[in-house]
Amino acid sequence: MIELIQLDPYADTPLYRQLHLSLRNAIENGTLAEGSRLPATRELAGQLGVNRATVSSAYEVLEAEGYLRGHVGRGSFVTRPSSPAAIPPAPIPLATPANEAAIRFDTSRPSELLFPLDDFRATVDEVIHSNEAAAILQLGSAYGYAPLRRYLLEDARASGEAGPDDDILITNGCQQAFDLIQRVFASNGETVLLEDPVYAGIRNVFQRGAARVLGVPVTADGLDVQAATRAIETHAPRLILITPTFQNPTGATMPAAARQELLRVAHKAGVLVIENDLYAPLRYSGEPVSSIKKLAGQGTSADTILLRSFSKIAFPGLRVGWAIGPRHFIARLAEAKQASDLHTDQLSQAVVLRFAQSGRLDAHRKKALTAGSERLKATLDACAEFLPAGSTATRPEGGMNVWVRLPDVLDAGELVARAEREGVSYLPGKYFAVGRVESNAFRLSFAGLAPEEIRRGLRVLGQLFGAELTRLRSTHRDEPAAALV
Amino acid sequence: MIELIQLDPYADTPLYRQLHLSLRNAIENGTLAEGSRLPATRELAGQLGVNRATVSSAYEVLEAEGYLRGHVGRGSFVTRPSSPAAIPPAPIPLATPANEAAIRFDTSRPSELLFPLDDFRATVDEVIHSNEAAAILQLGSAYGYAPLRRYLLEDARASGEAGPDDDILITNGCQQAFDLIQRVFASNGETVLLEDPVYAGIRNVFQRGAARVLGVPVTADGLDVQAATRAIETHAPRLILITPTFQNPTGATMPAAARQELLRVAHKAGVLVIENDLYAPLRYSGEPVSSIKKLAGQGTSADTILLRSFSKIAFPGLRVGWAIGPRHFIARLAEAKQASDLHTDQLSQAVVLRFAQSGRLDAHRKKALTAGSERLKATLDACAEFLPAGSTATRPEGGMNVWVRLPDVLDAGELVARAEREGVSYLPGKYFAVGRVESNAFRLSFAGLAPEEIRRGLRVLGQLFGAELTRLRSTHRDEPAAALV
Repeated sequence: MIELIQLDPYADTPLYRQLHLSLRNAIENGTLAEGSRLPATRELAGQLGVNRATVSSAYEVLEAEGYLRGHVGRGSFVTRPSSPAAIPPAPIPLATPANEAAIRFDTSRPSELLFPLDDFRATVDEVIHSNEAAAILQLGSAYGYAPLRRYLLEDARASGEAGPDDDILITNGCQQAFDLIQRVFASNGETVLLEDPVYAGIRNVFQRGAARVLGVPVTADGLDVQAATRAIETHAPRLILITPTFQNPTGATMPAAARQELLRVAHKAGVLVIENDLYAPLRYSGEPVSSIKKLAGQGTSADTILLRSFSKIAFPGLRVGWAIGPRHFIARLAEAKQASDLHTDQLSQAVVLRFAQSGRLDAHRKKALTAGSERLKATLDACAEFLPAGSTATRPEGGMNVWVRLPDVLDAGELVARAEREGVSYLPGKYFAVGRVESNAFRLSFAGLAPEEIRRGLRVLGQLFGAELTRLRSTHRDEPAAALV
Repeated sequence: MIELIQLDPYADTPLYRQLHLSLRNAIENGTLAEGSRLPATRELAGQLGVNRATVSSAYEVLEAEGYLRGHVGRGSFVTRPSSPAAIPPAPIPLATPANEAAIRFDTSRPSELLFPLDDFRATVDEVIHSNEAAAILQLGSAYGYAPLRRYLLEDARASGEAGPDDDILITNGCQQAFDLIQRVFASNGETVLLEDPVYAGIRNVFQRGAARVLGVPVTADGLDVQAATRAIETHAPRLILITPTFQNPTGATMPAAARQELLRVAHKAGVLVIENDLYAPLRYSGEPVSSIKKLAGQGTSADTILLRSFSKIAFPGLRVGWAIGPRHFIARLAEAKQASDLHTDQLSQAVVLRFAQSGRLDAHRKKALTAGSERLKATLDACAEFLPAGSTATRPEGGMNVWVRLPDVLDAGELVARAEREGVSYLPGKYFAVGRVESNAFRLSFAGLAPEEIRRGLRVLGQLFGAELTRLRSTHRDEPAAALV
């Protein structure tokens, strides 16, 4: 089997990762049988002409994933992972490839052209010339910069989203909040419910932390609460983490009644509800729905933690997010935060605070809403015009993402490379799958693109998908009919 | 036993943590025997008059630490942790207490009065008015801001500290580097060697990650390499993490010969060497010693990863550090970084880069060296003048910390509260212990205090310790002699 391993030293993927994937594939498809012994690292390194540490790294990852077990003095033996949680995360490109696609539907972020640079400069200027400048440069609290914490907590109290027993922790964006929650609540193999499909950055955190990750389907009305109820009753999860408004990747929003039902079920079963709420301020039409955290505060209800950030409105490069929840939970998250990186960068915390306090955030949000609304419309119009018959697209009322399902016979993942050669990128369904891969689906992240780019990109995709569909159907017609038996 | 639990709702320590510590003490001292059953969370919450979630949280932490095991339908039972790694981290105060000590020797950080505020403002101004402003606000790479990475890597190559196969990852200060290293290399119960005593932030990361943490004594010449060699041969650790220059808390520095010997032993055993090198630029006297990373590059040697930051020189509140090491290791750390928080804040990365590139960092470092040198001298002089006879203090040539050992009969931990009442704070030996508590020792972090504050603080401590010594000795004299049998 080893003879078949081909490593490419010039590829973007590191050598150890290439080797790791080769070996894992071989284990997955049975070429390397359970119980078989892998060569010693020194030996395999010699055979492949790579550094011994490259082989060690690949073996270590396989071991962490449960594909390999070492026996002192005897070597490393192939095993099979015992739990679905050991399925490794789909890799997300770490660096921008050299031949970058011209029209990128692959990242859920605002457009650089919309950044309020003058307002940002004025804000920073005010911060660094304030009396707080020295305090900002000094070591801070793991909980976050006190003036920002006060501002956000008072705001949440005023809107009914924080109660007297709630506290706040500043995080490096929502991603760190997911990570801290995994560490504090799901580091011992606990069961965690996620939406399926879901943003890969959420799923990866829990899978890397060896939680038992189960997916609950997302419908046009967001999380399928009936399915969630069955999963809660059957699997007694520690927590459920959802994005109830403008979910990533589907754009779906849960109605208030569904949120209340979920809270009721979670409360009864003692399940912690984590609400990832960073897209809600980007509503382009329709009526706002109360956050789960707010609904939970209106009755005896489940424990909830609300996660937010301004990164989808203004400053993705400034890593500032926050978590609001019961004081004792926030205290545990803050301890994990301190061990993780002491505290969030203070310059950015102060800038974000000043940006909000000065009213510039609200002013910019209005512009972001106008732009987002145009872009969403351009996306849905172009989907209708260019995608092959039988395709569907979700119709969100806000956010940054539309979920497209192509006719079943198409595999959106297989077509990514061809789309990129034609200058258009997107993320296919497999990136977002928890338990169930929608191979015909893909995500269109529209917020970073101008309407004319959106139109141009979808015309390219429509032609590509249409041509492939024609080819597949003609191939299929040429096949002899199966005998009826 | 439950009757004896006293919780204080007004204390700084959260209720769940108070309960957790009470229960753990009861288990540690045998009041709660192994195998005994704890009350259900609802029941205990009722008895103590606290929220049920408070009890659940305390139980969860005990379970994570290995003190408690749950059996479905039967309850929670006391167990004993199976490995020393399960010893929980000593808590570090998360928030500044209201009655803050006037003279604080407890934090290893520069003085706010020395912050180069005008230079900082000019730097930020240049950054936000540069062409890079929009790119800084956009989502970035998990590896870090490319111009900063290039600058630091070229600098490390020029000084012989990075080779052609090395790469760089930007982290949120060195603390996040420790955390990522734990996650990538020591998340499956691996053995990790640390200095003993050591900065609690390092020890806590590995203990929280359930690594098997073993301490190697630190001598006046830094890590005891003979003891490290024995530990490597006996325990086959995955890695050893050391601060070879101006170690925290002892201030000790390893000579070049000891570094080379450690590299030789680590190479032979395949042990990864992590070099935490954030204090080295703060050398006030004596000759610089080459970093371990540089020595490793000069021969066939162990794998090493170098950790650095500017936070001890200028900007602790800006969370920017970096790790330099073999490309395949950096790739794995970057994957963990992406899952952890996407990337480090870009505004601060750009500010730190501009501060260094503009020459302002070097200019400020000269001032920091002058101030640090005066403060170290003031500390050592005041130790000699005020501490009771029989006390010793280490004599570092740089950094921010001196390690004081009082006469054996004194317990520095017991005296902390009294010192704080007299307006002086310090961290006692137990905060830094890995396997061996030096109860008569404490750390003096001098860099944040003016020389006259240092003198005043040590006079207070000297009087306190002297009086306690007199009391203990007189008490001892009054006791009847033990019968000889």
